[in-house]
Order: sequence, then structure tokens, then C-alpha cells
Amino acid sequence: MDGQMNDLPSRAHITEVGPREGFQFEPPHITTANKIRLVDALSQTGLPEIECASFVNPKVVPQMADAFAIAEGITRHDRVAYRCIWLNEKGFLQALGSGFDTPALTSGSASDTFLLKNNNSSPDQQLERQRKLRHVYNENGLGSGPVYLFTAFGCNYEGAIPVKKALQRCAELVHICEEAGVPPANITLCDTIGAAGPADVRALVSAVRERWDYPVALHLHDTRGLGIANALAGLELGVARFDSSVGGLGGCPFAGNRSAAGNVATEELALMCDRMGVETGIDLGALVEVASLAEEIVSHPLPGRLSKAGLFNATL
Amino acid sequence: MDGQMNDLPSRAHITEVGPREGFQFEPPHITTANKIRLVDALSQTGLPEIECASFVNPKVVPQMADAFAIAEGITRHDRVAYRCIWLNEKGFLQALGSGFDTPALTSGSASDTFLLKNNNSSPDQQLERQRKLRHVYNENGLGSGPVYLFTAFGCNYEGAIPVKKALQRCAELVHICEEAGVPPANITLCDTIGAAGPADVRALVSAVRERWDYPVALHLHDTRGLGIANALAGLELGVARFDSSVGGLGGCPFAGNRSAAGNVATEELALMCDRMGVETGIDLGALVEVASLAEEIVSHPLPGRLSKAGLFNATL
Repeated sequence: MDGQMNDLPSRAHITEVGPREGFQFEPPHITTANKIRLVDALSQTGLPEIECASFVNPKVVPQMADAFAIAEGITRHDRVAYRCIWLNEKGFLQALGSGFDTPALTSGSASDTFLLKNNNSSPDQQLERQRKLRHVYNENGLGSGPVYLFTAFGCNYEGAIPVKKALQRCAELVHICEEAGVPPANITLCDTIGAAGPADVRALVSAVRERWDYPVALHLHDTRGLGIANALAGLELGVARFDSSVGGLGGCPFAGNRSAAGNVATEELALMCDRMGVETGIDLGALVEVASLAEEIVSHPLPGRLSKAGLFNATL
Repeated sequence: MDGQMNDLPSRAHITEVGPREGFQFEPPHITTANKIRLVDALSQTGLPEIECASFVNPKVVPQMADAFAIAEGITRHDRVAYRCIWLNEKGFLQALGSGFDTPALTSGSASDTFLLKNNNSSPDQQLERQRKLRHVYNENGLGSGPVYLFTAFGCNYEGAIPVKKALQRCAELVHICEEAGVPPANITLCDTIGAAGPADVRALVSAVRERWDYPVALHLHDTRGLGIANALAGLELGVARFDSSVGGLGGCPFAGNRSAAGNVATEELALMCDRMGVETGIDLGALVEVASLAEEIVSHPLPGRLSKAGLFNATL
């Protein structure tokens, strides 16, 4: 191992976001039974955390109208956290009632234009909503949770986001948590549209580290094929928390989609960690099978390569 | 830029191997006219070197029976090297007569089993053939050329290849060149079946560097999704020569192919270099269009993501 790998973590926590990102993105033809089947299969692979659904307006996202049914249908394992997301108080209260795990989520966007299009909020409105949400979290006895910064590296409306701007938006969200007496559990930097390269990841992660002691997590979309290289850049800086999606669920690049693409494929991120001696607790063989199951469920090829090739048997 | 990036080269030389790898792998339905169309389009993107065809037994590889026609049909640009490959003296003499550029190629395999299956040679037979070939190169006035080490990191028959074994096979090939008074132009380490992770790339590249002063090049297949991360690991060690294939030509993971997959996608490797300040001379926009052309020609989706998403406009 050379000097470049000194900061590698001994262990990485991978949160599977495929069910939420994937089912939200796919046309609404996927049955609740199949969604439950995928979550149950994922929970057998050693993954510590699975993002299963979102509580959002079913008029806007009909794919997630069965979020309650998914929560009721899955078979829970003690060692797995079954997470969901929401954008506002109504969604949070639904999530709370659903039985999913609900780590307090404070979110915002580095790009103001993306925030307007995605959350229909101005930066001030978003901060006010997040402040109220954090208050509701406290009322419901929630502890610290992640701060999510969307479009941390760039967006399709504003182009590249300067580190200074991303830090400013991040600081506003961190302040909301600290002000409420509940510091963030981590700061998750999202490359929402696959704008980053490895140098960009290093620059922002390093800047966030210089400013705060909170753990940094990465949520990396593979829109332009650099996702796994960006994950490597993060790993080598000691980043030990990642979101990823089995098979690369969350987008279908083969449909010529120009607005979204899935996250880094969980099985490939886990393979890279494994090949570098970073423990994930994941059973790679089992996870590769689930990637194939995910393709069967969405009934089109997913971007992940590993499930097509199979694991390399290094010990033949 | 942090310390981890100190060894980044200021410039990288990318050799496009898509036409040779891709057309060799695809079913033989691709017309000679379309092969010529792709090579001509690639030669307009700023790529310095294109591997266009191979001179091998047409009974074994019927897809390459039109190698001469491709050589005659393409429109040459002075700044582009139009390369081809061969496995034996007969193939080399055909290549020489074809008009393609023919840098002296000395090749072998770190895996003896792969060598037997791919070249029908024992290690000793291979060395003897390469020695004779190098003699023929000298007779034909060829200078130094690349040493290609196949399955440098592992193979499907022998599993992971220890660095020591790869170095030994590499040393035998280097010796053939030095013995002939024509030291290698570079040592190209091939991850023929996508066995490597970033740490493996670092270990072997560093070991080769410790032993020889010859430039190291990487030929990375993306069989398991780690190709671009492996390229990043090489780039950060100062590796400044890469083979890659436009669109990821060279394999169709979507057919559930378990034995082969394309190289790292040239446009994604070029994008990563660009985002890291490593000059390639490539016009990214033009190359992304050629990736779409490649998909049109093979008439199935290729693994590359960038051509589906389009370039991110950082300067909006």
C-alpha cells in the first residue's frame, strides 16, 4: 500500500438507496410485492441500511403511493435500518407513522435553481422549512440525523457550484441542527446530477472537513461514468459513508435519459472496498444476485457491470 | 489539489482500441463501410492513436477478415497513428503490407493458462515466437514498440496473479527487446478480464516502476465496473498512457456475457482527465458524438454512460 492510501478507512458504511431512487424513477409498473421482494432480498446481504421509500405527494410521484404498504410488507432484521425520506412536515409525519426508521433529515441544495425546481422553495423558504422540521423532530424525540446537501458539485441550471457556495449552503443547514441542540450525524454531499470528478470530490470533502468535525458521506450519481472513481477519491480521503444503489438503480441511461442516472452500483462499490481491504460487512455474492433480481423486477438492463460478469474468483 | 494528486501527469496519451476490440467482439454483421466510418470519425476527435484492426486467422476471427479493406478505406490524418495488432509473423507481415502503422509489438501473458487458450502457446513457445518476431521486426527496420502483458492482474483460469509472477513474465518480454538492442517503448499492463482493483493497479505499476525506467501504460477492461477507478489509480501514480474504447466497445455486458467486457470508455477517461487538469488533446464534445455513432453502428446499447447523459456544462 503506498502513501496515497494512508487515509483509507478500515470500514465503510454503505446505505442502499436503490429501492427509493429506483422505484421513484421507474415507470409506475412495479408491483408493491416486487418492491417488498427487493427490500427483503437486500436485507439478507449484510447491508446495514436500506432507503426503502419516500413520503411525497402521490400526485407528483405516483410510484411512491404504496410507501405504507412497503413498510407493512417487509420482513425486518434487527441489524438493518429501514429508512425512508420526505420533503416536508406532512411527509415526515406519514413516515413516522409508517414504521420505517426516520433519522432526522435536514436537507437543502447548493444550487438555488435546483432547489426551486425540486422543492419549489427559495433558499430562505427552504431554511425556514428545515428549521420548523427540526423543531418537529425534537417534539417527536428524534436525535441527530444527516444533513443532505443536494447538487453539492453542480447542477444543470447553474453549472459548476463553487466550493465556497456549497460550504455556505451547508453551513446554513448545519447551523439549523446545532441551533436546535442536535448536531448533524453526518454531512452527506450529493452529486445529484453527476457533475463531479475526483478532484472536485477532494476539494469539497477537504473544505467541509476543515470547517467541521462531523463525518462526511457521499451520495454519488454515475451520470457520466465517473461515480466509482469519485467514490475512490472519497475513500482515499477517509470518507467511510456512502449511498449507492444496487445494480445502479435510479436511472436508465439506455433510454437516453439526459436528466438523471442511477447512483454508483452498490455491488461495485462493495467490490472496490473489498479489493482495497475496506470492510463493509456485505456478502458480495448475495448482493450480485440481488442486482440481477433488480434487473428482473424493472425488466430492463441496469448500468451495473458486475452482475453481468459475475465476481472474479481471485483464489482459483 | 491535495498531496494525493502530486504525481498526476500534465498530459495523457489515450490510444483508442474500440474499432479493433469492438469489431472483433461483435457478431460479424458490421459492414466494412461502417468500420471505416467509425475510424474516420474517431480520427477527427483529437485522439493521437487508433487501433483499427487485427491480422489474425479469419477462420478464428471472421470479423477481422476485412482488415486490409479498412486500411485502404480510411482517410488518414498526419497527427493520428492508425495501429493494428497481430499474434504471429504471418499476421505481422500482413499488417506491414496493409499500410497500417505497425509499432513493434512484443506480447505475452502473466497467466500461462490464458496464454495456452488465447495463443495456443506454452510460456517457452511464446517467448521463442516473440524472440523470432523481434528479429523479423529488426529485419524490417522497426524500432522499439510496446511490450503487452495480458492478464497482468488475474485470469479466469488461474485467479489472481501474484505481482512476482507478473514481473517475471514481464521481465522475459522486456529481455527479448533489450537483447535485440531495441528496448521497449512502454510496458502495457493489461487487465484483460477486469480482475484488478485500484490497490492492485498501484501494487503492480509501482513494482514495474521500481524495476524499469520504461513508461508504463494501462489497458483496463471494465468487466466489473472498476475500470475508471483503476484508471484514476494509475493516473495518480503518473501513468500517462492508456488504452480505452469509445462507448466501452468491446463487450456487451447486457447480453449477460461472462467472459469479456469492453475497456474503460474513452470519452469517460478523457472527461476524468479533463476534470483533473490532465491534457489529452481530445475534443470531448466530438468524442461523445462518436460514442453515439458507435452505438448506432453496433445497434445495441454500449456500457458508456456519458453519451447517454451528455456533457455537464460546468460554465452555465
